[in-house]
Amino acid sequence: MLNFDVQNQAYLAQVEKYLDSECFQYSDEPQKELFDAMRYSLLAGGKRLRPIFVLDFCRMCGGDWQKALPFAAAVEMVHTYSLIHDDLPCMDNDDYRRGKPTNHKVYGEATAVLAGDALLTAAFAYIAKAPYSAETRIRAVEILSDCAGELGMVGGQVLDMRSEDRQCTKQEVLDIQSRKTGALIRAACLLGVLAADGGSEQLLAAKGFADNLGLAFQIRDDILDIIGDAKKLGKAVGVDATKNTFVQLYGLETCDKMVREHTDKALEYLSAFENADYMKHLASLLTSRTV
Amino acid sequence: MLNFDVQNQAYLAQVEKYLDSECFQYSDEPQKELFDAMRYSLLAGGKRLRPIFVLDFCRMCGGDWQKALPFAAAVEMVHTYSLIHDDLPCMDNDDYRRGKPTNHKVYGEATAVLAGDALLTAAFAYIAKAPYSAETRIRAVEILSDCAGELGMVGGQVLDMRSEDRQCTKQEVLDIQSRKTGALIRAACLLGVLAADGGSEQLLAAKGFADNLGLAFQIRDDILDIIGDAKKLGKAVGVDATKNTFVQLYGLETCDKMVREHTDKALEYLSAFENADYMKHLASLLTSRTV
Repeated sequence: MLNFDVQNQAYLAQVEKYLDSECFQYSDEPQKELFDAMRYSLLAGGKRLRPIFVLDFCRMCGGDWQKALPFAAAVEMVHTYSLIHDDLPCMDNDDYRRGKPTNHKVYGEATAVLAGDALLTAAFAYIAKAPYSAETRIRAVEILSDCAGELGMVGGQVLDMRSEDRQCTKQEVLDIQSRKTGALIRAACLLGVLAADGGSEQLLAAKGFADNLGLAFQIRDDILDIIGDAKKLGKAVGVDATKNTFVQLYGLETCDKMVREHTDKALEYLSAFENADYMKHLASLLTSRTV
Repeated sequence: MLNFDVQNQAYLAQVEKYLDSECFQYSDEPQKELFDAMRYSLLAGGKRLRPIFVLDFCRMCGGDWQKALPFAAAVEMVHTYSLIHDDLPCMDNDDYRRGKPTNHKVYGEATAVLAGDALLTAAFAYIAKAPYSAETRIRAVEILSDCAGELGMVGGQVLDMRSEDRQCTKQEVLDIQSRKTGALIRAACLLGVLAADGGSEQLLAAKGFADNLGLAFQIRDDILDIIGDAKKLGKAVGVDATKNTFVQLYGLETCDKMVREHTDKALEYLSAFENADYMKHLASLLTSRTV
C-alpha cells in the first residue's frame, strides 16, 4: 500500500471514530430525536475533506494531528449544518444527499432546522474544549466564525441564491465560489496550522493553498456536473447547468486549463511545509477526479 | 428621575447604539439583502433583557460595562436568531413579532434561515473580537455555545415541539423552560461576570439568580398569556393555552405564588454582589409586569 493510502486511511478512520464516539451520544437526555438528526447527517459519510485538511496541515506543521480532532470535527459540523439547511424545501429542496434521504425528509423540517442550528453551535463548543491554549482556541473561533458567517459561507449562499435568475459576471461567480465553498476550506487549513502553533508564514501559505485548491475543486465540480455520470456522482447530473457555473462562463476547455493552473498554484504554496507529499497527492487526486 | 431609570436608559441607549452602528453595516459588500435581514430583526426593539443582564452583572462585579457591549451584542444575536427560526413556517409559523412582520414574511424563508444562521455565527465572532483576555473570551464561547446548543436552548426547543400534542409532567415543563428560555438568560448573566473577571462565587450566584429569575419570568409570561391584554402584549392572547404551560399544570394561584418565591430566591442570590439595586428593581419589575 502506498504511504498516501496508509495516511489517508488513518485520517478517515480517526475522523469517523471521533465523530461517532465523541459527538452527541447522550444516554440520559430526553431530546434524543435532535441528537439522532444531528448524527444522521454528521455520520453520513462523504469525503471528510475539511477534517482531513485540518489534520494534515497540523501534521505538516509538525503538530500531533490526533490532538487536532476536535478542530477537525468542528469544521465538519459547520459543513454538515450548511448541507442540512441548503437541502431544506425553502432552499434547494433536495430529497437526497449522498444517496440517502435528506435530513428534513427523515426528521421533518423543524427538526432539520434545529439540528443544523445545534451543529453550528456545537462547532464552537468543540473548539472551546479542544486541548490547546486559550489563544489558539479563540483564534480558531475567530477564523471559523469569520469564514462561516455573513461575509463568508452564509454570505456566499445568499449571493448564489440571488444569482440564479440572471447572468453573472466572471468576477461575481468567483466571489460566490470563494465565499460559498472556499471560505470553509480556508478555515480548515488555517485551523490545522493553528493546531500545530504554526507561524504567520505558514498561515499565509495555508490560505494560498486553500484558495487555489478550493477554486480548482469547484471548477472541477462544475465540469463533472456537465460531463459526469449520474450514478458515480450520486446526484442528478446537469442540475447546476441552469446556474452560473464556471463551465457556462468559460467553456469546458478553459475550465480544464483553470483547474490545472490553480492546482499548480496550490501545490506551490505547499513548499512552505515539510513532508507535504500526502497533501500534494490529495490535491492532485481531487482536481483530476472523475467522481 | 430615579437612579434605576437613569441606569436603564444608559444601558438601553448604549445597546441600541452598539447594535445599530457596530453590526452588519457594510457599504461595499454585495449581499446587502442578508445584512438587511439580519439588522431588521436585530434592531426590532424588544426589552433587550439579555444584553442588560450582561452589562449589569459586569457592573455589579466592578467591571467597565461599556467594554462588555460585544458580549451583550453576542447574546442578543443568539436570542434574535432563535426568534427568526422559531417564527418560520415549519416551526411556529408566525406572521408578526413585536407588531412587525416576521423576518421570513419580509425577506422570504430562505433568507430568514440564512439570516438566523449568520447571526448565530456572528455571535461567536463578536465574542472572539471583544477586548478581553483569550482566557475570558474562550470561556465566554464555551458558556454561550453550551447554553445555546443541543443540551440548552435548541434542545429545549425540540422538547417543546414534541410536547405539544401530549400532557407533560411538571418536571418536563420545568426542564423545557430551563433549556428553552432559561439557558440563554444564564449565559447572559455569566458572561457579565466573566467580562468583569468575577470569581467562581460570583459565577455561581449569577447562575442561581438567572435560573430563578428565568423561571419566575416564564411563569409570569404564562400567566399573562391567560389574563393578558392582546394589545398590550402585542401578540395573540391565549395562543399558548394549547401548550403545556405552568398555568395549565399548577393553576393561576399557585403560579402567582411560584413567581413570588422564585423572584425572592433570585433576589437572595444578588447579595453576592455590591450595589445590586438596579438588578433588584429590574427583577421585581419583570416578575410583576403586566405587559
